[in-house]
Amino acid sequence: MVNGIERPLDLLNNSKSQEVMVQLKSGNKFVGTLLAFDIHINLVLENTKEMDGSDIKRNLGLTFLRGDTIIFISPASTSLK
Amino acid sequence: MVNGIERPLDLLNNSKSQEVMVQLKSGNKFVGTLLAFDIHINLVLENTKEMDGSDIKRNLGLTFLRGDTIIFISPASTSLK
Amino acid sequence: MVNGIERPLDLLNNSKSQEVMVQLKSGNKFVGTLLAFDIHINLVLENTKEMDGSDIKRNLGLTFLRGDTIIFISPASTSLK
Amino acid sequence: MVNGIERPLDLLNNSKSQEVMVQLKSGNKFVGTLLAFDIHINLVLENTKEMDGSDIKRNLGLTFLRGDTIIFISPASTSLK
Amino acid sequence: MVNGIERPLDLLNNSKSQEVMVQLKSGNKFVGTLLAFDIHINLVLENTKEMDGSDIKRNLGLTFLRGDTIIFISPASTSLK
Amino acid sequence: MVNGIERPLDLLNNSKSQEVMVQLKSGNKFVGTLLAFDIHINLVLENTKEMDGSDIKRNLGLTFLRGDTIIFISPASTSLK
Amino acid sequence: MVNGIERPLDLLNNSKSQEVMVQLKSGNKFVGTLLAFDIHINLVLENTKEMDGSDIKRNLGLTFLRGDTIIFISPASTSLK
Repeated sequence: MVNGIERPLDLLNNSKSQEVMVQLKSGNKFVGTLLAFDIHINLVLENTKEMDGSDIKRNLGLTFLRGDTIIFISPASTSLK
Repeated sequence: MVNGIERPLDLLNNSKSQEVMVQLKSGNKFVGTLLAFDIHINLVLENTKEMDGSDIKRNLGLTFLRGDTIIFISPASTSLK
Repeated sequence: MVNGIERPLDLLNNSKSQEVMVQLKSGNKFVGTLLAFDIHINLVLENTKEMDGSDIKRNLGLTFLRGDTIIFISPASTSLK
Repeated sequence: MVNGIERPLDLLNNSKSQEVMVQLKSGNKFVGTLLAFDIHINLVLENTKEMDGSDIKRNLGLTFLRGDTIIFISPASTSLK
Repeated sequence: MVNGIERPLDLLNNSKSQEVMVQLKSGNKFVGTLLAFDIHINLVLENTKEMDGSDIKRNLGLTFLRGDTIIFISPASTSLK
Repeated sequence: MVNGIERPLDLLNNSKSQEVMVQLKSGNKFVGTLLAFDIHINLVLENTKEMDGSDIKRNLGLTFLRGDTIIFISPASTSLK
Repeated sequence: MVNGIERPLDLLNNSKSQEVMVQLKSGNKFVGTLLAFDIHINLVLENTKEMDGSDIKRNLGLTFLRGDTIIFISPASTSLK
């Protein structure tokens, strides 16, 4: 069991300053460092890379992602283990 | 009759620390251990596996799933009986 | 006229512990015993069966169904008469 | 001019215990006796028939219809005149 | 400039008892006399005709139209000038 | 820099009585004089023309446009410069 | 780490008067100078250009963009580095 996750937003809080993978409803996939989020699950990522499978498709730098476009968010460190 | 389920969220509360299967509107299917949920049905799963039928397609580790992408959630223990 | 249904949720209340058929926007059809519902029309079904026409496609056991995925809910006893 | 309809829900109130035709966003069409409605336009119909044009496709008996799936509701008596 | 329209709902208020054309997101087009509307843009039309271009496809009589299915509403008198 | 636009609705306020171009999610494009708007971005346009590229497809006169169907609104004077 | 971004809207605030790239759910891509935004992520852009890949498809001048059509917003300066 992972300690300290009582509510879903706790995972986002624990993932700040870490790399996360974000899958969108549109099919787009982004990888970047999580700088900020809010209760709408709007995110700001740094060093954002739009991915095509495991290839980098585009470098987007700082990015504001609207929460209602997101399917899931996964810390990169845990999705690689 | 299953005791102790008076409101829908009671099933999610009873399923904490247990494996659940989550079917999304996008067609994706996830299996993982339910760590947390909120009233928007946002979930955090641990040891999340994206499934392709009964095969594992991807290991995602810890995952925050947005509630508005979900069709249904079923405890794995009951869906196998 | 069916007595005792003044508001739509009264039908759901009357259908507790009974088998209901649930048609989803995604095209999926479920049959199961209604254990619980809330004002968002989130449901918990027991002995849930995903149907393909009149054939059972999958046994899902206990299932939490998000209300916003639902088109209609019909008590099985009335849909068969 | 039809008397007594000042707000849209007045038409639904006037149509209680009468047969209505309901067209859904999904393309489904239902005919049944309106028993109840609420401000979300959730409906309960009795003797619900799913229609295929003017043919009966399925008898559904009592049915709870989610309001957000509906395009329009028309009292059968007025749609036939 | 058209006098007396300070807020969008003023146009609907001015169009009461007049024929309006309603275009829906589903592609359906309705023409009828506007009897009532509310802040959700739910409408009641009288003598509603479902149109196929400029031909009448169906007579629907009194109709409750859900606001969230509507793209635009135009008074027939102004759309013909 | 354009003076006097501190909030998005300021642009709509500045565009009253002027011609605007409105692009909808459905692919429809309208040009008309902006008479009124509200916080839902519902609009009333006068002399509304439905466009097919740069050709006029239909004259709609006064039109109530639901805000949730809109992608963007651009004052015609600025989109032509 | 980028300083001063504690909440997602801080990135939009920092990007005022700067060029941003906006990707919409509809597939449209816009580049323009961010003049204003609100909590719905409605935006006003100046010198808006609708892009087709890296080519300019249309000049739109001042543009009000509805927030619910947006996937992501990225300051042009950071997406080019």
